[in-house]
Amino acid sequence: MRNFEFQNPTKLIFGKDTTASLAKEIDNDANVLMLYGGGSIKKNGVYEQVKEALAGHKVVEFGGIEANPEYATLMKALKVIKEEKIDFLLAVGGGSVIDGTKFLSSAALYEGDEPWDILTKHIRTFEGMPFGTVLTLPATGSEMNSGAVITRAETQEKLPMGGPGLFPKFSVLDPQVVRSIPSRQIQNGLADAFTHVLEQYLTYHVGAFLQDRFAEGILQTLIEVAPRIMKDTEDYEAASNFMWCCTMALNGLIQKGVPSDWGVHMIGHEFTAMFGIDHARTLAITLPSYYEYKFEAKKEKLAQYAERVWGVTEGDTEAKAKAGIKKTKDFFHDLGIETKLSNYTSDYEGTAETIAKRFAERGWLGLGERQDVKPDDVEKIVKMAY
Amino acid sequence: MRNFEFQNPTKLIFGKDTTASLAKEIDNDANVLMLYGGGSIKKNGVYEQVKEALAGHKVVEFGGIEANPEYATLMKALKVIKEEKIDFLLAVGGGSVIDGTKFLSSAALYEGDEPWDILTKHIRTFEGMPFGTVLTLPATGSEMNSGAVITRAETQEKLPMGGPGLFPKFSVLDPQVVRSIPSRQIQNGLADAFTHVLEQYLTYHVGAFLQDRFAEGILQTLIEVAPRIMKDTEDYEAASNFMWCCTMALNGLIQKGVPSDWGVHMIGHEFTAMFGIDHARTLAITLPSYYEYKFEAKKEKLAQYAERVWGVTEGDTEAKAKAGIKKTKDFFHDLGIETKLSNYTSDYEGTAETIAKRFAERGWLGLGERQDVKPDDVEKIVKMAY
Repeated sequence: MRNFEFQNPTKLIFGKDTTASLAKEIDNDANVLMLYGGGSIKKNGVYEQVKEALAGHKVVEFGGIEANPEYATLMKALKVIKEEKIDFLLAVGGGSVIDGTKFLSSAALYEGDEPWDILTKHIRTFEGMPFGTVLTLPATGSEMNSGAVITRAETQEKLPMGGPGLFPKFSVLDPQVVRSIPSRQIQNGLADAFTHVLEQYLTYHVGAFLQDRFAEGILQTLIEVAPRIMKDTEDYEAASNFMWCCTMALNGLIQKGVPSDWGVHMIGHEFTAMFGIDHARTLAITLPSYYEYKFEAKKEKLAQYAERVWGVTEGDTEAKAKAGIKKTKDFFHDLGIETKLSNYTSDYEGTAETIAKRFAERGWLGLGERQDVKPDDVEKIVKMAY
Repeated sequence: MRNFEFQNPTKLIFGKDTTASLAKEIDNDANVLMLYGGGSIKKNGVYEQVKEALAGHKVVEFGGIEANPEYATLMKALKVIKEEKIDFLLAVGGGSVIDGTKFLSSAALYEGDEPWDILTKHIRTFEGMPFGTVLTLPATGSEMNSGAVITRAETQEKLPMGGPGLFPKFSVLDPQVVRSIPSRQIQNGLADAFTHVLEQYLTYHVGAFLQDRFAEGILQTLIEVAPRIMKDTEDYEAASNFMWCCTMALNGLIQKGVPSDWGVHMIGHEFTAMFGIDHARTLAITLPSYYEYKFEAKKEKLAQYAERVWGVTEGDTEAKAKAGIKKTKDFFHDLGIETKLSNYTSDYEGTAETIAKRFAERGWLGLGERQDVKPDDVEKIVKMAY
């Protein structure tokens, strides 16, 4: 096991009808900016619940944060923060709204001229404007971590940011929100959380037995609840486990003491930036090819995964490892998610070269747990994913 | 899954040679009281490591905190805190030293006349004097939770306390400390952590699938590393997993959203108070009888435990559940820990009646996940454990 530091101060308020309790988490004299997305919260009742809970607070609203939160939109919100002397942010939405709020938390206290530098210059945030979240879409884990991904349309870029100042003060997780989530987003959430775990688990052995067990436990639970929640979003038992898995998949815990990969995400982000494909689906496109390409380096862990998570008992290490990739692909298909780029766009020729060129231009050392996936490897992986 | 709130702000610093990093976690102008136990830290090098790390700080020492930290001893330390104007506590030791430090953290800011009231009147601590820990003995999980158990010899009592103000600011966990731990304490640590998990897991189904998987993962890991660490305390891979399991077994995570029992602990504490038996061994004495007595209420979960943790595939629910109890007893025996009270004292006659009477006098509603274990049940369970 590797050395690690772990601290996660976010207060989680999890369960049925918990939204009302957010009022006690925000100072009475705070100037709150309530941020949300395209308005689904006005249809599922969450908007009313939050407004009711905050009846005693001064609240300004900012709606319209899009999936893959856009820098230009967020800069408008930043203007509101300054003009209205906002001192507390409340994200009401899924990972995009929360990620956008994290950017604003950082940008609101940033002293440089150009907040985009936070992303391009990898500036870590040690102190941000305090914020809380009301999660409406289990998937990204952003409600209990300190990372975010922001998109800039004009440059077709999608870049990560983070820092210890960007943990939410609190997050309200009421699994009943799952009832009104469209099936496409349920599928995305399941695939997203599943891939988050694999990125931190499917690397190589470092003798971190407990971390492996926890990762496998999340995967097993997602596999168990996926068909139930896809069939019936009113199934609270399935919904609550789905929601808790998504949070635990990316709140930092399973990543401690182990190598992690994130190459699938880094390539996937490019598909979103170039084609606007849903984040989770870009992972499903990338993952099988990525693991096939990195088979030798990952086969030990792939075999353990196949055995423990999927119950594969036949064959040697290689055979089990191959079965592990196939099971994952089948899982995505069972979710109704296609795993080839050509399923999403007919305009894919040249994509591999474009992405490889971008990676080279950004000067990244290399992707993956050993930083050995270079731009020319990326080109081959993306071609395998056509 | 039940509703829950979860927040654990403790910063963990985990790994080889991490003790030096504690200096950066304590303000330079703090008046530090360094608390420790019987002096084993002076033999294993930890004392020197801590003193070296704190070379730039003002440090007063208080040694001699015994196993099952004693109120009278702690009151002496409280006097030092007041006299020396201490404003930061550093526990260097195992669960006893850390628990004692938590009591002091609370008592130092307590405004009543009699700090023992914190325990007898169940006064929760919302703000304590800040403290950190350097863990020298993996077992109790006290390094990442907000609870403590304090003993008072004159009344033969051992009582719990806690509150959100009692999380350590930081805890340094260097698994290399395991090298110099005597085998008896290694055995105790393994049995203690194992039982902590069972107290939170072996109740009844509430559809908390992920919590079950995490609990099972800790148990599986403890089972995997126990023989290795008992054979060779220099086995860092085993030691680091052992240490991480002990922390995760009782940092609040697996308890969220599920019922928990703690009856085994409540009865076990009495054996320590009456006979001075090691805490972990009191759990091993109590647990098999307790589960046999509560068999009907626990058999579903016992069967799942037997299947998933011990790989029991034969028989119906009842047979598997019984196998689960037997496997647990065998596990304790394999650790070298006896499971009957008569293995520890010949003076056990009347113990059951005494403990039952104490519970009745304290007016406790009942032990266990359904609060249905009444004093007369306790009497029967303790007799089964003779």
